Amino acid sequence: MELTPEFKNNLLDLRRQIDEYLLKSAGASYPASLYQPINYFLEFGGKRLRPLLTLLSCKAVGADYRLALPAACAIELLHNFTLVHDDIMDQDSLRRGHPTVHTKWSESVAILTGDGLIGLAYRALMNTPAETLQQVTKIFTEGVIRVCEGQAIDKDFEERQQVSVEEYFDMIQKKTGELIAVSTEIGGIVGQGASAQVKALREFGEAIGRAFQIQDDLLDIVSSEEVLGKDLGSDLAQGKKTYIIIKLKELSSPEEWDNIQTILRQRRIDRPTLEKIKAIMTKNKVIETTVEQIRRDIHSAQNSLSSVFSPAQAEELMQFSLMILHRKY
Amino acid sequence: MELTPEFKNNLLDLRRQIDEYLLKSAGASYPASLYQPINYFLEFGGKRLRPLLTLLSCKAVGADYRLALPAACAIELLHNFTLVHDDIMDQDSLRRGHPTVHTKWSESVAILTGDGLIGLAYRALMNTPAETLQQVTKIFTEGVIRVCEGQAIDKDFEERQQVSVEEYFDMIQKKTGELIAVSTEIGGIVGQGASAQVKALREFGEAIGRAFQIQDDLLDIVSSEEVLGKDLGSDLAQGKKTYIIIKLKELSSPEEWDNIQTILRQRRIDRPTLEKIKAIMTKNKVIETTVEQIRRDIHSAQNSLSSVFSPAQAEELMQFSLMILHRKY
Repeated sequence: MELTPEFKNNLLDLRRQIDEYLLKSAGASYPASLYQPINYFLEFGGKRLRPLLTLLSCKAVGADYRLALPAACAIELLHNFTLVHDDIMDQDSLRRGHPTVHTKWSESVAILTGDGLIGLAYRALMNTPAETLQQVTKIFTEGVIRVCEGQAIDKDFEERQQVSVEEYFDMIQKKTGELIAVSTEIGGIVGQGASAQVKALREFGEAIGRAFQIQDDLLDIVSSEEVLGKDLGSDLAQGKKTYIIIKLKELSSPEEWDNIQTILRQRRIDRPTLEKIKAIMTKNKVIETTVEQIRRDIHSAQNSLSSVFSPAQAEELMQFSLMILHRKY
Repeated sequence: MELTPEFKNNLLDLRRQIDEYLLKSAGASYPASLYQPINYFLEFGGKRLRPLLTLLSCKAVGADYRLALPAACAIELLHNFTLVHDDIMDQDSLRRGHPTVHTKWSESVAILTGDGLIGLAYRALMNTPAETLQQVTKIFTEGVIRVCEGQAIDKDFEERQQVSVEEYFDMIQKKTGELIAVSTEIGGIVGQGASAQVKALREFGEAIGRAFQIQDDLLDIVSSEEVLGKDLGSDLAQGKKTYIIIKLKELSSPEEWDNIQTILRQRRIDRPTLEKIKAIMTKNKVIETTVEQIRRDIHSAQNSLSSVFSPAQAEELMQFSLMILHRKY
């Protein structure tokens, strides 16, 4: 299955509408110390994965996607809040090729920028049609809490030697999967889809979210800095427990793992170091195993859809799931 | 007008119900790195000024205050979010006599604690009766945004030499007044008060909020450390532009102000330094002027109420406003 030009053009058009709505949402100017960094960060662009999923999910249940534009943008604003605060906690200096907010301004400014984005997210959400607003606000709020829990668990893992794949899946379900599942679920609800459709959309989102996060972990190691727009190997350097790192430990010999640990203790990952680690990964088929897991998740996402939606209804979301599989950044 | 024992007992009872609801709201335990600091912070207690105002406002319009308990606690959770994040930005190490979250744990933990509190605040809010939930959520959300704006302006002022009283009033209206006005307004709305009543309650809250903040500024200088439970003179040390500091500048001679500036440039306020500054304040009647402003605001708050409510309806809020005037911490 190939991405059709119509689909690509359609996505570009939806993205344009999302970006417009986002910048309008953050359109205030006073105080500049709050709204300048908010606008700066939103203008980085980004994939707009979550709001696109909301709009496509709303279309999938047969409704006008414009009904879901406020909620879609609310989710993107919320996602941006998590990025700004995570960048402080992870001390990341680059995001999408630009200095992060706390690097360009200060930690205080970045804390407030994130806080302000939550407020703006809820303000946007309030423009959802009244019939579904209450249900949507509840799901959105549970998403906020879940994302904070996931980030706390992720930070806890950095201090631990041993994290199982099951614990990792639980963590990313909260940290990443939940908000993506909220995106598809809310799209279905705003479009007043049948409850089986909404349930299928949520399951689709959960599986896509998992695939997306594992892909993210993989790209941290195999992508190039220019394409990724952030420090390569930063997960490794911070002691993050990602899928690929957990699998690396599982599939390497004790000697190889000792070797990697010695390298990692230097807490500075340059290119030759990264190449050494990648050689051990290649030998033990860690990358293939990871790609295999991503494929399984995408497949399970597609199955959720096809059990409830007709091929025509599901087509755009199906294409979207393929895009995730093939993304380079 | 004296506070009656019945009123005091009634407040104690309401506070107990608020504390119960708050701890129930934060009752989750996993991950501990998120919920331990949240519970730690909520257990400091505090005055519970805002939720009490919400409940009393709901009673004032003749409704059962229990309808407003979720919204009241949502506002208190939101207030606690601002405290946790402000403590990081202001680098305050003590709050109500306890180490602040970022001091006891870390900045990352404190950022997430604040974020989590926002999520829990909205979750509590969602238990508001459906008839008024939508309106209440909108007002609450505008409050979130306003509070972030106020905090940004407050931080901006620290870098400025000159701030007018008008600019100060605008800043505290956003940073403190808004959330107190939201407390009384939402109490009236949940109780389904008439629109003139809701308007009067909001005005009451705005005026009380201003009085409260100016009182807070005053206590930073005239209170004792033991009573206040935080570093004395910390506003002065941080270059905060408070009402009392703006008035001190206005009412002092140029020589006296130069003198104060030299003292402040040391950025370390010990007791003898504070006494020197207090002597200049006493000479220029800065404290009297400040107390006078607080009285005026309390008076205007009371006028807002008495123009719409009968004395019996307004009585508890009237007593509450007196309590603010006489508080010591």
